[in-house]
Amino acid sequence: MDERGGVPCNIKMFCEGEEESGSINLPDLIAERGDDFKADACIWEGGGRNLNDDPFMYLGLKGVLGVGFSVRMLSGDAHSSYAAILPSAAWRLLQALQTIKDQDEKIKIDGFYDAITEPTPEAIAAVEALPDDAPEWLETFGVSGFVKGLDGEDLRKQLTFQPTANIAGLDSGYQDAGLKTVLPAVASAKMDFRLVPEQRPFDIFKKLRMHLDKHGFEDVEIEVLGAVNPYRTDLNSPWVQLVAETAEEIYGRKPVMTPNMAGTGPMFDFGDTLGIPIATSGIDHPSHKIHAPNENITKEDFLLGAKHAALIIERFAKDWS
Amino acid sequence: MDERGGVPCNIKMFCEGEEESGSINLPDLIAERGDDFKADACIWEGGGRNLNDDPFMYLGLKGVLGVGFSVRMLSGDAHSSYAAILPSAAWRLLQALQTIKDQDEKIKIDGFYDAITEPTPEAIAAVEALPDDAPEWLETFGVSGFVKGLDGEDLRKQLTFQPTANIAGLDSGYQDAGLKTVLPAVASAKMDFRLVPEQRPFDIFKKLRMHLDKHGFEDVEIEVLGAVNPYRTDLNSPWVQLVAETAEEIYGRKPVMTPNMAGTGPMFDFGDTLGIPIATSGIDHPSHKIHAPNENITKEDFLLGAKHAALIIERFAKDWS
Repeated sequence: MDERGGVPCNIKMFCEGEEESGSINLPDLIAERGDDFKADACIWEGGGRNLNDDPFMYLGLKGVLGVGFSVRMLSGDAHSSYAAILPSAAWRLLQALQTIKDQDEKIKIDGFYDAITEPTPEAIAAVEALPDDAPEWLETFGVSGFVKGLDGEDLRKQLTFQPTANIAGLDSGYQDAGLKTVLPAVASAKMDFRLVPEQRPFDIFKKLRMHLDKHGFEDVEIEVLGAVNPYRTDLNSPWVQLVAETAEEIYGRKPVMTPNMAGTGPMFDFGDTLGIPIATSGIDHPSHKIHAPNENITKEDFLLGAKHAALIIERFAKDWS
Repeated sequence: MDERGGVPCNIKMFCEGEEESGSINLPDLIAERGDDFKADACIWEGGGRNLNDDPFMYLGLKGVLGVGFSVRMLSGDAHSSYAAILPSAAWRLLQALQTIKDQDEKIKIDGFYDAITEPTPEAIAAVEALPDDAPEWLETFGVSGFVKGLDGEDLRKQLTFQPTANIAGLDSGYQDAGLKTVLPAVASAKMDFRLVPEQRPFDIFKKLRMHLDKHGFEDVEIEVLGAVNPYRTDLNSPWVQLVAETAEEIYGRKPVMTPNMAGTGPMFDFGDTLGIPIATSGIDHPSHKIHAPNENITKEDFLLGAKHAALIIERFAKDWS
C-alpha cells in the first residue's frame, strides 16, 4: 500500500453478524442510515475458485421466507386410545402441509409464481455455460438422482432459477426409542421457501395464509422466521465487467458467472434499495468445507483473493467514471 | 381369612412388568409354559368406580400395532438451497403417511377392516347404556368437539368399537428456536393402530407394507414396535355374571359394563389362547389420576376392591361347577 502511495479511493467495509439467521434487522438499518452505506460500487464476499480451479463469481442470491407452523388441538397430550374420538394435531399439520406442494415439486399456493420474472438471455446462457457439478453432488449427498430425473442444463436451471418449498423441521409427540402410545396435543414444522426475482417474502407469507384459510386450515398458525428479498445483478453492468476482467488477470482464466446462488444473502438491500452495482470477489474453494466441520482457507486462495481485491480497487480508482 | 378357615380354592397370581410396553414376550411365555397358567376363571385388574360412583367392569381390550416409520433420502443433511434439486425425506414421509388415513378418519389400507367382526347385540346395548362422559372429556382435553362431530351413543361406539391410526411421533430436521435452513436427510414417525376383534397386528403390518409398496413408497421403512391382539369377553359368560352380581352386593349398585376398553392389554393371551373366562374387578376411580402425576388410590376404593375380590373367591368356591 505504501509502494502505491496509499489507498486510491475511499473504502467502506460492512460486516454483518446476522446474515446466517436471515439479516432480519438489515432493511431497517438501511432505511434509517442508508446515507452511511452509499457508494459507487460494491465488492461482495462469495465466489473464489471452483473444483477445476476456474475463478467464479456469484451475481445474485435467492431470497428466503422462513415460516414456523404450529397446530394445537388439545390442552395436553392424551392417551392414544382417545385417537378414535379426539382430533389429532399431527394429522392436521400433515394435511395442511400436504396442500402446499405436489409430488411433481409444484408449489400449489395461489399466486406463488406470479411475480417471477424470466431470467435474461444472458443469465440463461451463463447457467448453460456453468460446469456440470452433478457427479460431485451425487457423491456428496449419496443419491442416485435428482428430483424429476433432472440432469445437465435443466438441473442447473432448476437449482438457479426455481423457488423451493422445503421442510426444515418436523416435530410432534414422542420420538425416542420404542413406542409411547400418545396422542400429541401439538405438532409443529419449519419451512423455508427460497425465492427468485421478483418474489417478495411478505407477499408469499400473505399468500400462504390465504392458501391455508382457503383449504380450511384457519387453525394452523404460521409465523415469519426469516425474510430476505432475492436479487440478481445485471450481467452487463460495467462493474461486473471490471471485476470479471481483473479476475481473469489474477487467475489467468475467464471467471465462471453464476447469475445467482441457490442460497440467500441480503444483496437486495444494497443492490436495489441503495442502487449500488454489486459483484463478488471471494476466496472460496470446494475443499474449504464451507459451513462444515474443519472449515478452512488455503493460503493460496487467500493470497489470490487479496490480489484480486487490490487490483479491483486500483482499476476502479483509475477507470471508473 | 382365619375366620373362614383359609382360602377356599387355589389361587394363581400373575404380575407382568411389560404391559405398558406392549407385552411383547408374553405370547411366547404362554406358548412355552401355558400349563402353569391354567385356571378355571380369571379376575383381571381394571375397573372400579366411575365418576358417579357406579361400579364398572371392562370386558375386553383393544389390540395394538405399533409401527416405526423411517425415510432416508441423503447420506447427510444438506443446505436447504439444494431443496430445488435433491429429494426430501420429510416430504416423502408426509406423502406416505398421507395415504394411510383420509380426512373422514377412514383408514385406507387395503383390507384393514376385513377381519372386523360386528359387536354382539349385548355389546352394543352395553355401550348404549354407558354413562355419557362427553362433557368430562371435552373439559379434560380442552376441545370443543369430537372427530366427525360425533356425540352421544355414536361417540361411545366410535371409541369402543372402531380401530384407529394414530400418529404418536414425528421427527425431522431442526426443531429448536428460529430457522435453520437445512434439508433433512432423514425423517421418522411412530404410529399406533388400535385394533378390534378379530384384527391381528401382524396381519395389519403386512397389509401396511403392501399398501406403501402399492403407492410407490418401497423406500419407506417400517418396523413393528408393539403387537397385541384385541379381545372381547362374552357378556353372557357365567363368570362375568358372578363377578357382576358380587360387585352389586359390595357396591350396592349394578355395575356398568364396558364391552372393551379403548386401550390395550394382553387379555387375548389368557382369554383366547388359554381359554380362561375373564372378568375385571378393580379399584380405579377418575380421581386417582391413573398414569398421571400424583397417581393415587383412596383407602375407600382399596377396601371396596378387596372386599369384592374376597366375595368373588368365596362365591366361586361355593357355586362354580
